[in-house]
Amino acid sequence: MSYGASLMAVAFVADPRGSWRVERQEAIVGEGLAVSTGIAVIEGAPGAGPAALPAAISEQGWRLTGMISHLRYTSGAERSALGAKSAPLGRVEALHAALLPIRKSPEWWALPQDERRAIYEEQSRHTSIGMEYLPRIARRLHHSRDLGEPFDFLTWFEFAPAHAAAFDELVGRLRASEEWAYVEREVDIRLVRES
Amino acid sequence: MSYGASLMAVAFVADPRGSWRVERQEAIVGEGLAVSTGIAVIEGAPGAGPAALPAAISEQGWRLTGMISHLRYTSGAERSALGAKSAPLGRVEALHAALLPIRKSPEWWALPQDERRAIYEEQSRHTSIGMEYLPRIARRLHHSRDLGEPFDFLTWFEFAPAHAAAFDELVGRLRASEEWAYVEREVDIRLVRES
Repeated sequence: MSYGASLMAVAFVADPRGSWRVERQEAIVGEGLAVSTGIAVIEGAPGAGPAALPAAISEQGWRLTGMISHLRYTSGAERSALGAKSAPLGRVEALHAALLPIRKSPEWWALPQDERRAIYEEQSRHTSIGMEYLPRIARRLHHSRDLGEPFDFLTWFEFAPAHAAAFDELVGRLRASEEWAYVEREVDIRLVRES
Repeated sequence: MSYGASLMAVAFVADPRGSWRVERQEAIVGEGLAVSTGIAVIEGAPGAGPAALPAAISEQGWRLTGMISHLRYTSGAERSALGAKSAPLGRVEALHAALLPIRKSPEWWALPQDERRAIYEEQSRHTSIGMEYLPRIARRLHHSRDLGEPFDFLTWFEFAPAHAAAFDELVGRLRASEEWAYVEREVDIRLVRES
């Protein structure tokens, strides 16, 4: 994956004809989302905003939109380490995916940058923990908060079936961290690529 | 001004019937903007996204949209100092305003958080310089980058006529800073409140 600064809008849409089949779905914290049999991932043109995203094939129900954007907490050293270990999306063996929409609390967003960074990494080791699972678990983050969306982040993961247990371990460790005390809504959607 | 985390969408619209009259306008770096006789400032409902913003009275020409959002570089100590000195928008004596839409370069956005912070404050003293002009110059920042807008930030200032020279000094000092080497588009629009 790229850790550059390119902007791209992405929508995740409840769509029975989407290319990812929903295997299971759970509301981890707060209100859930209506369950669809499938999810479509719609990527916009580079640099274009959310308003320019096209519709899905047979869109129905919810649509969550986010922007791939610059990193907010990662230091230069961390980014170099991530870049050396990361995997791209779309690997042929990565038949499993997870969409985890997350909203943090007003208390989180009221913290200044240095305190959010300290909780994120020095206390919760978010980047360090994630790095242990690279390149097995590919990840892409979409920022939604400034779009007035119901979630702040849409986190997307892709991995081979053999690494599903490792993914469960990863999310379990993050959910046990100090940072997750500030998560007030989280839905966990597990997906399998339609062949 | 509040340094909290409340989200609010704001549009600045070329509108001859807007409540701010354009006194002068200059393209500082890069392409300018069409000159309108007036500008309307349209504020959305708390928490609502840019798509929910209403139209201006007689909108014509450009519309720039941004989100009031959480602070990205300010430390807890800096935020406390800012909060103690800041002034709100809408003061009766603040008959002058300035709208400075700014876009930074891909090189800026490709820098990791710690390097952007170091250029912003340790090298360029952005917050420290701005603080010298508080409470004379009230400021509100709107984030546009993740909206796919032509600018990354819409910076809005309000001040009494007696402080117009101080405002010129403030923007002059910031434009001479290391941070401004990363500004690739900036328009300077000076406004007077319609009585």
